[in-house]
Amino acid sequence: MLTAGELDAYLGEDLGDDDDSNGIVPVVEAFGRIICKEDGVLAGLEEACAIFRHLGLAAGSDFVDGQPVKKGDIVLEARGSARDLMRGERLALNFIGRMSGIATLTAKCVALAPGVRIAATRKTTPGFRKFEKRAIKLGGGDTHRYDLSSAVMIKDNQIRIMGLEDAIKVAKRAASFTKKIEVEVESLEDAEKAAKLGADIIMFDNMKPPTIKKGVKLVKSIDNHILIEASGGISLSNISGYAKTGVDVISLGALTRDAHWLDFSMDIQL
Amino acid sequence: MLTAGELDAYLGEDLGDDDDSNGIVPVVEAFGRIICKEDGVLAGLEEACAIFRHLGLAAGSDFVDGQPVKKGDIVLEARGSARDLMRGERLALNFIGRMSGIATLTAKCVALAPGVRIAATRKTTPGFRKFEKRAIKLGGGDTHRYDLSSAVMIKDNQIRIMGLEDAIKVAKRAASFTKKIEVEVESLEDAEKAAKLGADIIMFDNMKPPTIKKGVKLVKSIDNHILIEASGGISLSNISGYAKTGVDVISLGALTRDAHWLDFSMDIQL
Amino acid sequence: MLTAGELDAYLGEDLGDDDDSNGIVPVVEAFGRIICKEDGVLAGLEEACAIFRHLGLAAGSDFVDGQPVKKGDIVLEARGSARDLMRGERLALNFIGRMSGIATLTAKCVALAPGVRIAATRKTTPGFRKFEKRAIKLGGGDTHRYDLSSAVMIKDNQIRIMGLEDAIKVAKRAASFTKKIEVEVESLEDAEKAAKLGADIIMFDNMKPPTIKKGVKLVKSIDNHILIEASGGISLSNISGYAKTGVDVISLGALTRDAHWLDFSMDIQL
Amino acid sequence: MLTAGELDAYLGEDLGDDDDSNGIVPVVEAFGRIICKEDGVLAGLEEACAIFRHLGLAAGSDFVDGQPVKKGDIVLEARGSARDLMRGERLALNFIGRMSGIATLTAKCVALAPGVRIAATRKTTPGFRKFEKRAIKLGGGDTHRYDLSSAVMIKDNQIRIMGLEDAIKVAKRAASFTKKIEVEVESLEDAEKAAKLGADIIMFDNMKPPTIKKGVKLVKSIDNHILIEASGGISLSNISGYAKTGVDVISLGALTRDAHWLDFSMDIQL
Amino acid sequence: MLTAGELDAYLGEDLGDDDDSNGIVPVVEAFGRIICKEDGVLAGLEEACAIFRHLGLAAGSDFVDGQPVKKGDIVLEARGSARDLMRGERLALNFIGRMSGIATLTAKCVALAPGVRIAATRKTTPGFRKFEKRAIKLGGGDTHRYDLSSAVMIKDNQIRIMGLEDAIKVAKRAASFTKKIEVEVESLEDAEKAAKLGADIIMFDNMKPPTIKKGVKLVKSIDNHILIEASGGISLSNISGYAKTGVDVISLGALTRDAHWLDFSMDIQL
Amino acid sequence: MLTAGELDAYLGEDLGDDDDSNGIVPVVEAFGRIICKEDGVLAGLEEACAIFRHLGLAAGSDFVDGQPVKKGDIVLEARGSARDLMRGERLALNFIGRMSGIATLTAKCVALAPGVRIAATRKTTPGFRKFEKRAIKLGGGDTHRYDLSSAVMIKDNQIRIMGLEDAIKVAKRAASFTKKIEVEVESLEDAEKAAKLGADIIMFDNMKPPTIKKGVKLVKSIDNHILIEASGGISLSNISGYAKTGVDVISLGALTRDAHWLDFSMDIQL
Repeated sequence: MLTAGELDAYLGEDLGDDDDSNGIVPVVEAFGRIICKEDGVLAGLEEACAIFRHLGLAAGSDFVDGQPVKKGDIVLEARGSARDLMRGERLALNFIGRMSGIATLTAKCVALAPGVRIAATRKTTPGFRKFEKRAIKLGGGDTHRYDLSSAVMIKDNQIRIMGLEDAIKVAKRAASFTKKIEVEVESLEDAEKAAKLGADIIMFDNMKPPTIKKGVKLVKSIDNHILIEASGGISLSNISGYAKTGVDVISLGALTRDAHWLDFSMDIQL
Repeated sequence: MLTAGELDAYLGEDLGDDDDSNGIVPVVEAFGRIICKEDGVLAGLEEACAIFRHLGLAAGSDFVDGQPVKKGDIVLEARGSARDLMRGERLALNFIGRMSGIATLTAKCVALAPGVRIAATRKTTPGFRKFEKRAIKLGGGDTHRYDLSSAVMIKDNQIRIMGLEDAIKVAKRAASFTKKIEVEVESLEDAEKAAKLGADIIMFDNMKPPTIKKGVKLVKSIDNHILIEASGGISLSNISGYAKTGVDVISLGALTRDAHWLDFSMDIQL
Repeated sequence: MLTAGELDAYLGEDLGDDDDSNGIVPVVEAFGRIICKEDGVLAGLEEACAIFRHLGLAAGSDFVDGQPVKKGDIVLEARGSARDLMRGERLALNFIGRMSGIATLTAKCVALAPGVRIAATRKTTPGFRKFEKRAIKLGGGDTHRYDLSSAVMIKDNQIRIMGLEDAIKVAKRAASFTKKIEVEVESLEDAEKAAKLGADIIMFDNMKPPTIKKGVKLVKSIDNHILIEASGGISLSNISGYAKTGVDVISLGALTRDAHWLDFSMDIQL
Repeated sequence: MLTAGELDAYLGEDLGDDDDSNGIVPVVEAFGRIICKEDGVLAGLEEACAIFRHLGLAAGSDFVDGQPVKKGDIVLEARGSARDLMRGERLALNFIGRMSGIATLTAKCVALAPGVRIAATRKTTPGFRKFEKRAIKLGGGDTHRYDLSSAVMIKDNQIRIMGLEDAIKVAKRAASFTKKIEVEVESLEDAEKAAKLGADIIMFDNMKPPTIKKGVKLVKSIDNHILIEASGGISLSNISGYAKTGVDVISLGALTRDAHWLDFSMDIQL
Repeated sequence: MLTAGELDAYLGEDLGDDDDSNGIVPVVEAFGRIICKEDGVLAGLEEACAIFRHLGLAAGSDFVDGQPVKKGDIVLEARGSARDLMRGERLALNFIGRMSGIATLTAKCVALAPGVRIAATRKTTPGFRKFEKRAIKLGGGDTHRYDLSSAVMIKDNQIRIMGLEDAIKVAKRAASFTKKIEVEVESLEDAEKAAKLGADIIMFDNMKPPTIKKGVKLVKSIDNHILIEASGGISLSNISGYAKTGVDVISLGALTRDAHWLDFSMDIQL
Repeated sequence: MLTAGELDAYLGEDLGDDDDSNGIVPVVEAFGRIICKEDGVLAGLEEACAIFRHLGLAAGSDFVDGQPVKKGDIVLEARGSARDLMRGERLALNFIGRMSGIATLTAKCVALAPGVRIAATRKTTPGFRKFEKRAIKLGGGDTHRYDLSSAVMIKDNQIRIMGLEDAIKVAKRAASFTKKIEVEVESLEDAEKAAKLGADIIMFDNMKPPTIKKGVKLVKSIDNHILIEASGGISLSNISGYAKTGVDVISLGALTRDAHWLDFSMDIQL
């Protein structure tokens, strides 16, 4: 998951060139444990283990990523040079804290929307997308497309420039047959058009649950294969309303924008 | 601030290899505006401009990073190929949204703690630290040390292995004379010891304001040059209590862990 | 399309550290032309221009990528330092030669299979895939999926391990809703199963046209949305037989494995 | 031969960020074999083994690169995680297929030109030169110079700008004494001049065998140390004519431009 | 200390693409020893061992970096493939030779200035700073700041633009509380000003020992915490004069600019 | 010569992540001059200009690399943002200082050995070879081979393992015809053998001038094409003795190992 080159780059960011903070510690063997301080869903464990192993330490766990964790759980144990334990500590905690925070928020949404896929967006921290998308998956969610090349998505800006019809027609001709075409609509009229023009997925953007409900019925009556996604202004507090509209997917920028880190700490002893 | 190599890597993460989503758009000139949708402090503008310029577009702004922005403000305007505007859109928004969120939270803390430095920690998103630290500065805060090499910090784990006295003595001998030595303490006894042994900065970790107040008096009476930092469990809701203890610095992991993104959107027109 | 970093790496491969071959040439302005020596479809022009511009030269063309070219056509003109013209020459020719060769072979297949998409495979030169896939597109073909993440493809090896049914079921549950699921089958029985289990695309692997014809009818009768691809052992000499079976797509490893370079040369004059 | 960084880059190109195609496969141990489907000369085996080992698999072979292989030969066996076998499959096959194709074509030329060195050119796939040059060597050929810095080569374009005499004189003065100087000529007059001016190698470009034969006699009579190379328009069908002219070296762009991949496939079983 | 990526880059610089020099050697096991040919202080041993191990060899030593070595000492032994021993030889010697040269010169300065820190500067070979700074430390010296971000240094150019007072005031406000502020002065008046304005370190630039002596007394009388550094025109021949002035630190560009390599050679046997 | 990626890496090494040292300087235009403080030969000017230009400054010079410079000469002028001038200052000086030091020492050797090529070795600072080799050339010297792949060199270690005869025979068969073969000998007997076996270059290692003189006569009598190089223990003080032996080339590790930096400084004004 993490290449040696990525591990060196991430560690380099936190170590700098002359780590006296740990350089002062004698060369002794020590033992470190990462402890969970808040209930949630674990993610980033694999990355944390990779960090310690890259530093030459033994690292293991009784948990696996995606599992629920409780306050007090020891989620990772590592053994080896005291200096190296401390050198991996902050980076490992940063991975576990951020990724578990996202997984935990995702899992909460999943629980509130039975039978509906909970999906992320492209609102991710630059450079860190693959880990944030992985955390979404570990929380039971759907990554949605990884990047602009993963699937064709026709959004407000494309429509403003090309018109809805033209955009869909060009996409169906120009894009590879291996890609789905998703169209973002803001009205039932556009939903109907998109459905008739052969969209694979229709996304209702910033529409209220009652309208979405009508839209779902309308679209499915035209072509039952079309998947329907709701997006825009959805959060923990109102998600269950959207879940009952019959949509297949609910996507939330909040999963990556607003997830608090789950709290973990590490203690190191001789 | 952003090298060409970094821009290509960040853009590559969002574009993938075959961006049909924008490839379907005709080659026309268009005009895009990033609009603020929430009051706060602006950060990431420089990065967003760099992104659009790297794509060959003209980009400018009436604002500068660090300035307050209000809902409705147009914070960036760009002009050029419609395709390239759309290719930079998400990345630019991700930079501005995340960085402005951090700057805004920092500024709130600064306002609640007059005369005290508000500092970040090393609890940052792996790979994105320099932008998060820059956002802290733009919000009026202090970056704290960048990495393990920036200054020597003697924390619980070092003390558990070496003892407080030994750790400080070795650090003073081994570290460059250009670095400050900061010691994290959990009791007034340790604060006193650290002060007498020549620490440059003493950090009171997870201590309550009344105890910190005593600690400040104690340490300053030993050596008035020593800077004092409070850390641990501090948030918007309790920061003002810590600000009145006489400490020089308050540091909060929350600035980078829990900052919500500030909301911005981009519209693109012919 | 080519980042500065890629251009430096590609040029570095051909220049080495001490290019005396061109270092002996005086610092004079010269003029270079790339001449087509064989009829075909042009591809790699954009890359060739980028190479010369990266070296500080002016470069232009009356052609665009994807256009047919004839023996004798001057497809690119560049002007500037004689040394730099020679430094870009071989790399530019290698891009144009290889990419135009692929585009030309693709266009020949397209012409022989009217109404059918001609698609590539993942049989590409390591490190050079994006240029080979782009050449396919320029020749009128379909890139097929870029990599293992682009769409889910269930092939012989997956089926041998999991069984066809299980593989499709797990894929539908585990993969993002934004991805299509393609199943490779070697019999009509499996085609029927895959169609009923909800495959988006079915690929007939190494089957003869008459059987494929039956398969198309069978699958479309189950679900008319399913796209059908023929693959395996198809080449210029037999493609028209496959094209008449009613399949939507024909894919050929030969497009990237066996395309001869189109011949171009460059002359440089004062 | 392949660094860890190169392996990660090549694998990344084929895996993308979210390989569900293999992610659906259970975590089980499996066994894979690469089978040769066409007679030829093996190359790329070392690279293929490195790929599987980099993925944590055991990989071995009864063959070595450079050896002849026959249809049906099992050239590589690997064992370990089924997912990882499939993740390495395509990349390994792409290396073996392309490199063995080049080695096989080279070996055919070598067989047709006893006593003459068969050399490649700089007409290689950008970024992949070192593997294509290695395949040439494995087929019994000569890499020719790797890049513009390897040896000084004075070609048509240099001569057009500087004149033959001047070009050789400057090269002899300016280039390191460790480099040979090769001159490309298109007439016997120029061959004579180059020989008298001290060229180490003279290349007869696009000349017919009878003329070359005269040229060889002429040049060797001037200086017997000079090596003579024939190049331009030489292929499998006419190479033996050139081989009888007395030249030391025959170089063919076709070795890397036109080599068909040798066919291999991989099957994976529990 | 050296990442895999760095090792591959350094080895690549010395190996090139087609190392026939060692490729001609048969595949046999051999044994190599690095022998010291000049008395000095050892540095670069860790790097040399890492080089051989990266090439798959066993490597060890009875010495550690920072230890004195004598002519004739065998400082490293390695065993394994003869080819790989030769491939690592030059790079390992270049590391040990350059780094030991710097450590040796540093140790000589340290010996001549008892009780004073001997510090380096930023006058280092581009790209090689971290190894040169490490050699300084191994010789008993002080790295001084690593880069422009490590500590704030106000030098002649800043003062010419901003004035001394302004520069210090802005620095104290703008720079993180974790950084020291050092001011370079050329007169006692400026030293006094800097001391009163709160500089952490004052550097006397290009001043003679008697003046420095006065300056030390003056500054320490204002604030005893301030560290004092002498710099400019100091070398082995005059350092002891500066050492007696009471300064805390003496810095010399010569440590990295003018250190001769310590002489080592490697012999390899079956 | 320097790619954008290299410039960013070199600048990053000296800037770190948070350059307050220059960040405190106001945003004003300033003017900087690099002044020569010691007579010598200029090298690194092109690199220094590239550094300032990469930072967005105008930079120019009345000099060119390779020219003699005198104390007091202004070798480079740059204009633009004061901050950026200071950010480029140290790196530019490090390039000019180190490279001019090497060029100057090389030029001194050249002057003492009329008619003989003065060559470098592979004893270069890891990662910085191409700049050190370029400095050699600018001082009038010969780079010698760049790396192990540039030419085949048969040295003591190869001979110890394979024997002289075998080593030469294998090299002549295995290495590309484009490469020269150089043999290092320690006796006249071996020189004779190497000459008869067809070495292109013979290097007399650690032999005294009178013996070398005899060797030159011996070798040239066998084959007048063979170049002869003297190496080992040669320095400024004894080079003229070697120059009179009739050798073609004298190589000195000292050129890169022991060259003192030439002294330059930069002043910056509003």
